[in-house]
Amino acid sequence: MNISQILQDSCIDIEAWFRRQWRELHPPIYSSMDLRNAGFKLAPVDTNLFPAGFNNLKPEGMPLYVQAMQAAITEIDPEIVRILLIPESHTRNPFYFESVAVLKEILLQAGFEVRIGSLSPDLTDKQTHTLPSGRKLLIEPLIRNGDTISVKNFSSCCILLNNDLSSGVPPILENIKQIILPPVQLGWMTRLKSEHFSHYQSVCELFAEAIGIDPWLIMPYFDQCPDVDFQNPEGQECLITRANGLLSLIRKKYKEYKVPHKPFLVVKADQGTYGMAVMMIDDPEQLRNLNRKQKQKMSVIKGGKQVTKAIIQEGVHTFETAGPQQSVAEPVIYTIGRYVLGGFYRIHKDRGVTENLNSPGMDFVPLPFENLCHSRFYAYGVIARLALLASSRELAIVQKSNIHD
Amino acid sequence: MNISQILQDSCIDIEAWFRRQWRELHPPIYSSMDLRNAGFKLAPVDTNLFPAGFNNLKPEGMPLYVQAMQAAITEIDPEIVRILLIPESHTRNPFYFESVAVLKEILLQAGFEVRIGSLSPDLTDKQTHTLPSGRKLLIEPLIRNGDTISVKNFSSCCILLNNDLSSGVPPILENIKQIILPPVQLGWMTRLKSEHFSHYQSVCELFAEAIGIDPWLIMPYFDQCPDVDFQNPEGQECLITRANGLLSLIRKKYKEYKVPHKPFLVVKADQGTYGMAVMMIDDPEQLRNLNRKQKQKMSVIKGGKQVTKAIIQEGVHTFETAGPQQSVAEPVIYTIGRYVLGGFYRIHKDRGVTENLNSPGMDFVPLPFENLCHSRFYAYGVIARLALLASSRELAIVQKSNIHD
Repeated sequence: MNISQILQDSCIDIEAWFRRQWRELHPPIYSSMDLRNAGFKLAPVDTNLFPAGFNNLKPEGMPLYVQAMQAAITEIDPEIVRILLIPESHTRNPFYFESVAVLKEILLQAGFEVRIGSLSPDLTDKQTHTLPSGRKLLIEPLIRNGDTISVKNFSSCCILLNNDLSSGVPPILENIKQIILPPVQLGWMTRLKSEHFSHYQSVCELFAEAIGIDPWLIMPYFDQCPDVDFQNPEGQECLITRANGLLSLIRKKYKEYKVPHKPFLVVKADQGTYGMAVMMIDDPEQLRNLNRKQKQKMSVIKGGKQVTKAIIQEGVHTFETAGPQQSVAEPVIYTIGRYVLGGFYRIHKDRGVTENLNSPGMDFVPLPFENLCHSRFYAYGVIARLALLASSRELAIVQKSNIHD
Repeated sequence: MNISQILQDSCIDIEAWFRRQWRELHPPIYSSMDLRNAGFKLAPVDTNLFPAGFNNLKPEGMPLYVQAMQAAITEIDPEIVRILLIPESHTRNPFYFESVAVLKEILLQAGFEVRIGSLSPDLTDKQTHTLPSGRKLLIEPLIRNGDTISVKNFSSCCILLNNDLSSGVPPILENIKQIILPPVQLGWMTRLKSEHFSHYQSVCELFAEAIGIDPWLIMPYFDQCPDVDFQNPEGQECLITRANGLLSLIRKKYKEYKVPHKPFLVVKADQGTYGMAVMMIDDPEQLRNLNRKQKQKMSVIKGGKQVTKAIIQEGVHTFETAGPQQSVAEPVIYTIGRYVLGGFYRIHKDRGVTENLNSPGMDFVPLPFENLCHSRFYAYGVIARLALLASSRELAIVQKSNIHD
C-alpha cells in the first residue's frame, strides 16, 4: 500500500474538496513545507511561513510562480502596487540573499514595485550585495514615520515579511497601519509548532473522512510539553511521560499496518527553526541521559532564545533518495497563496532515514514535481496543501483577534 | 519607436490597471487572439471564444495551464466537479481533435472529471478516435433529458462549449439549466466581430489614457456594413464609402507617425471564422471589380451561411518572421480565465506581410513567450488581455440579458 498512489487515485475528489475549503479560508501569502515520505505514510514535519530557498526552485517555473503571486495578491487587495520586502537581518548568508533576490524577481515579473528594507539597526545606509549568481541586491535601512514604515522615497501600503521574528516583534514594526503579510503574530516569537499540528490534525481528520482513508497515513502523531528545561532533570519528566504515550500509540499503528521498522520520535523546540534544537530518539529514557552537548543543543534556538516549550512528534522515515550519491532525501514544497509552486529534495549524504536532514552539509536537488493529478508527485502537493489549510486556520485566528483589538 | 518596448516599460502601471479592471469584469472561460505586430503598432485582429489549437501550446507549460483552469473554474463556481465538453461536430480534422485532447488533459490534470459529447446527429454510438499523436479520444452522443444534457452515465452541472455554433444554437442546447461556458449567445451565429472591436476600442481608450499612449498604436481602426451582398453591385456601395473613409483616417495616422508603408484594409464577414471570407485591399475600388471567384469567397462562411454583414478593419502589417524559412508570422495568444497561457506563431511561407496567414499551408511555431514584465514578449500578453477585457464586456451584456429573460 502506497499512500501517494491512493491520493493520486482520488485526485478528482481531492481537488473538489480543496475548492470547497478555499471558500471559507484564506491562505497565508507564502509557505514552505518539509515532508517525509515513508511510502506507507507521507506527512509534513514542519511548515515555514517565512520561506527561504526560493533560489532552489527551478527557474523554468517562473511563469507559474508569477501567476500564483498575481492571483494571491489580487485576492488580498487588488490596489497593492508597491511592496516593501523585509528580509532576515543576519547578513552573512549569500544563499539566503539569493532566495530574497528570486522572491523579488517573482514580484517584479508580476508587475509590482519592490524595495527591500532591513530591520537590522546596524544598517545605517543602503548597501548593495553582489551575490554568487552575479545578481545584485539593494538593501536599505527601514524608516519609521508615524504609523508607517518605508525606505527612502518609497511609500508602500503592503509589507512582505520574510523575517520569522524569532526574537519578537521589533518596536519599528509595532502598531503599523500597513498590511503586513503574513501578520507579525505568525512569527516564531508567538507561533507554536504544536498549534500548527493541532490544526493540521483537524484538517486531516476532515480530509480523511471525505476521501476515505486513515488520517494517520498523512499526519505525524504528536504531543507537547509547555514547560520544559533541558538543563534540569525535572524539566524532562513531562517529555518522557508523553514520549512513552506517543510511542505506544505509534507501535499500535505499526502493528496494524505491519510496518517492519522501529518507531522513533522527534523532540523539537515548539518555536524552533533552522533545524536547531531538534533531536531524534527511539527510547524516551534517552531524554534522561542527555550529555552536556545535547542539553546545550536542545536549550537554545535562533537568536539565542531559551527553549521552554517542546513538541514531540512521531518520526517519519524518509525512504526517498536523490542526488548523485543517492543520498537520503526529503521533499520541500513551496506555496504562494493557494497555489503549489513545486519544490526540491533536501538531501544529506551523511544522514540516515530517521535523521534530521536540515543540518550543515545538506544540499538541494530540483524536484521534477508538478501539481498535476497525473503526476507521480501529486501527493506532495496534496499534503502541502493540507498543511497550508492548517496555516490558514492559524491565520484566521490571528486576523480575528486583530479585528477585535 | 516600438510599442512593445513602451508597454514593457509601463509594466507596473499596466498590471495595476488590469487588477482594477478585473474587480468589475469576469472573463470568458477561454479565448485565443490573433495579433499582428508591425513594430510601431501591435493589435489584435481576431478574438476567438471557442479556441482550438491547444495542441500547439508548449507541453512544458502544462502546470501553468492547469493552475489557470483551476483558478478560472473556482471563480465561476467552486462546486463544479464534472465537465461535459462539446467539441465541433466536423469529425475529419485530426489536429482539431488533438486540441480537444489537450483541453481535456488540462481539465483532468486540474482534477475535473471530463466526458466529451458530440452535437453531431450522425453520431449514434460512442466512438474512439486514435489521433496522430497516439492519444485516444472517446466521443459520445449527447442525450437530452428534460432541461439537462449529458452523455451516458454522466451527469454534469457544467458544459464547456468548444463549438462556435456558426450554424446557430441547435435545439438540444436550447433552454438548458446547466452552466454553459461560454454562453451560447457568444457563438458566431449571434456574435459580431464589429461589436467585439467596438468594445475593444472603448477598452483601449481607457487603457491608453491611463498609460499615456495613443490608442491607435494598439488597435485597428474599423467600420462595418450591416447589410452587404457581394453578389450584387449595390450591396458593395456601403463598403466602398466606408473603406474610403477608413483609409483616409489611417493615412493621416501614417503621416503623423511617418510610417513608410502603404495602408491597407481587411474586409471580413462580421461573423466569419476559420479565415473564411477575408479579403485584403489597398484601394476601395477593388471592391467594385471583384471577379466571380472573389465574390463567391466573400459570400459564404462556415456552415455555408450567407454573408450579410461585413467589417472593414485597418490592416496591420506583420513584420515578425519565424520558422526555418523565416516565414511571415503572427502571434496567437491563449487565455484561460484572466490568465495568459502563452501562444505560438502562425506562419505561412507563401504569404506576405499584409496577407491573411490563416489559410491552407499555414504552420505553427512555439512562441518562447512568458507573461512576465521583463519578457521580450510581455506586450503580447497585454494586448491579448485588452482583447479579453473586450470579450468580458460582451459576456457581461449577454449575462445581463440572460438574467432578465
